[in-house]
Amino acid sequence: MTSVTTTSSTLTRVQDRALRDRAATVIPGGMYGHVNVVGWSLPSNYPQFFSRSEGDRLWDVDGQSYVDMLCSWGPILLGYADPTVDAAAREQAQQLDAANGTSARMVELAELLVDTVSAADWAMFAKNGNDATTTCCTIARAATGRRKILKAKAAYHGASPAFTPVLGGITPEDRANLIEVTYNDIASFEAAAAEHDGDVAAVILTPFQHDGHVDQELADPAFARAVRELCDRIGAVLILDEVRTGFRLDIRGSWEPLGVRPDLSAFSKALGNGHAISAVTGTDALRDAVGSIFVTGSFWYSAVSMAAAIATITKARDTDVIETMRLRGEQLRAGIATQAATHGVAVSQTGPVQLPLILFPDDDEDLTLGQAFVGAALEGGAYLHPWHNMFLSGAHTEESINQVLAATDLGFTAVRRALERR
Amino acid sequence: MTSVTTTSSTLTRVQDRALRDRAATVIPGGMYGHVNVVGWSLPSNYPQFFSRSEGDRLWDVDGQSYVDMLCSWGPILLGYADPTVDAAAREQAQQLDAANGTSARMVELAELLVDTVSAADWAMFAKNGNDATTTCCTIARAATGRRKILKAKAAYHGASPAFTPVLGGITPEDRANLIEVTYNDIASFEAAAAEHDGDVAAVILTPFQHDGHVDQELADPAFARAVRELCDRIGAVLILDEVRTGFRLDIRGSWEPLGVRPDLSAFSKALGNGHAISAVTGTDALRDAVGSIFVTGSFWYSAVSMAAAIATITKARDTDVIETMRLRGEQLRAGIATQAATHGVAVSQTGPVQLPLILFPDDDEDLTLGQAFVGAALEGGAYLHPWHNMFLSGAHTEESINQVLAATDLGFTAVRRALERR
Repeated sequence: MTSVTTTSSTLTRVQDRALRDRAATVIPGGMYGHVNVVGWSLPSNYPQFFSRSEGDRLWDVDGQSYVDMLCSWGPILLGYADPTVDAAAREQAQQLDAANGTSARMVELAELLVDTVSAADWAMFAKNGNDATTTCCTIARAATGRRKILKAKAAYHGASPAFTPVLGGITPEDRANLIEVTYNDIASFEAAAAEHDGDVAAVILTPFQHDGHVDQELADPAFARAVRELCDRIGAVLILDEVRTGFRLDIRGSWEPLGVRPDLSAFSKALGNGHAISAVTGTDALRDAVGSIFVTGSFWYSAVSMAAAIATITKARDTDVIETMRLRGEQLRAGIATQAATHGVAVSQTGPVQLPLILFPDDDEDLTLGQAFVGAALEGGAYLHPWHNMFLSGAHTEESINQVLAATDLGFTAVRRALERR
Repeated sequence: MTSVTTTSSTLTRVQDRALRDRAATVIPGGMYGHVNVVGWSLPSNYPQFFSRSEGDRLWDVDGQSYVDMLCSWGPILLGYADPTVDAAAREQAQQLDAANGTSARMVELAELLVDTVSAADWAMFAKNGNDATTTCCTIARAATGRRKILKAKAAYHGASPAFTPVLGGITPEDRANLIEVTYNDIASFEAAAAEHDGDVAAVILTPFQHDGHVDQELADPAFARAVRELCDRIGAVLILDEVRTGFRLDIRGSWEPLGVRPDLSAFSKALGNGHAISAVTGTDALRDAVGSIFVTGSFWYSAVSMAAAIATITKARDTDVIETMRLRGEQLRAGIATQAATHGVAVSQTGPVQLPLILFPDDDEDLTLGQAFVGAALEGGAYLHPWHNMFLSGAHTEESINQVLAATDLGFTAVRRALERR
């Protein structure tokens, strides 16, 4: 995962470099996790530190701004600093946030999710997406008295010891009950179910396959139905991990158009438009199982993030944000396709348009083409990602997508040049 | 864990009951986790829902207010809605919170922790206390290539599958590497280390023993030193779980007065004065191990909670909040001791005065005395807990502690009456 050096950068990195130097002293490796720009196949002109955000725009610490296509890796559904959400959060903060118990906001938010998400008879809340996916597994194990969880190979369900893709510091026992199968390949699920007959607690799946570095893959409706049928047949719980997809594809639940309902769903990211919150929703059949487990956290009942989530989901529903994202996503996809043809560059655009991924089939392991593409687009004022799916928000406008396309045109020129240098 | 009915309550529960009815429909069991007032040995007059907080005072949804001795189970260090912290959070929220990367606040907060916490050469951040304790274990395993974690019996280090005290939905594999030993009993540690010779990655301990339902127990300094020596001898990592204690006993770290420094510390609760944040701090020797693991979360890099934490720790340090809490804690302890003697009731007050626990040695399994005590005190306008340690904050004043003592006098009368009914 080498970083491609952008030789002709016009972007200033004075403040960014000063902060990186300080960070190197007080943070191991200078940064960690998914926001680390070093070693993550991002070109050298990418900023590590940001200072301001509004709508569809993000400013780095050196004051340069970008139309942002990553939306904070998903949380920003309505745009940064959405006035409705932020007013709700500010108003709640003046009353109550963390307390000895929770507030009325928790009941209101649970009612809103039960009203909105078709498969939800109840809801509970936490902070991280991983809290939600982990809680789903615990509920499933409590309900079934079984241990094994079937998950698709390479699928990311959080960075806890059971799910992290990096095995440093992870024990064999942490992974002993995780059985890897192949997305859209029902035969692999059937084989795993047979091999672990009587011990499969749950199947956990994302609504479509959105692993990094490879083309995104929609769920075959027949596959989704077959997984549902398998779970029903063997008495396993079907968990839909909506952490990345929730409220962007279908506000009722991402598999509603397929006619397949999960037993449990994990939400986070977009739920609070940037405020830290996650949720598990589930069916009546699993209420008792929830009563037999103990999950909790110091800040899981805090009112401000719940007030933000109520405002987010209400606005997303009332203004049909999904249709806005779909239209802008179509605009981006069509524009990219046209530019790729014009520049004579092969490009792969996959997944739902609201969560676009742009890869270059002729790219190498270092993502030389992808890095050239996003590096040049950054110079043109658009923040894209070379291997992780991106996110539309309700704040993207026809004009801002046109700005992105002006930047990606520079990107294609850079890709063309990189190809010619081969 | 039966709830004692307070027959003569003057507190109104109209709104609270309406919300409980609604919650019963959309939240499994009506509530979950540590904020659930049902089944947690709290008397029937306790509110489930709150509406407002300020300083040392909390209002329930029916508008009744209490001097709060639970401080949101720990997070409230300076008082609810501390003006300095909330101004810092509001100002940051107008600039940037969640983003594609982090902000300068992360570097500033890491620098502040390295300056403040003696054992800290670096810091990293997350959301839950459990994120921090789990990350400490992962770092320790990565550093040592070993699996076993020694923890004290009954000690709580979070509600993840590896640590939750309730085993519903938990697999044997989740607990396979957790070895339980006895706090303050170095022989039990030595025995466990011998039994798992070559496979002990870490020892995780709270700075003092603060398990629910039993007297709190300070760490014997000789024990703390012996644990340090054991870890050094066998090459294991010493993790201090400061989630509950951090910034309340000694701002440099809770074992500084004992002269014992951990390799890793987990902080959360008080760090952001109610804003959701946790931290791991560690020594230079463990930097490389951090680089070999992958831990992350969607909201772990958000700027608002970091701005709040900077304001919290700075104010706690500059105004010597610990000394304020100590003085008010002494006042409470002395007042309770006097009242107990006056009423002829045996009482046990244990642990540091900033984290008081009040138990009745003559109590039964249902905590009839404890529930009578806190139930009557609630009627008198003080929120206490019958079996979990409580928390002082910098907002408690001599006058508010006097108000609490006026309420606990009613509590002792109720205990006296309960004893006479036997």
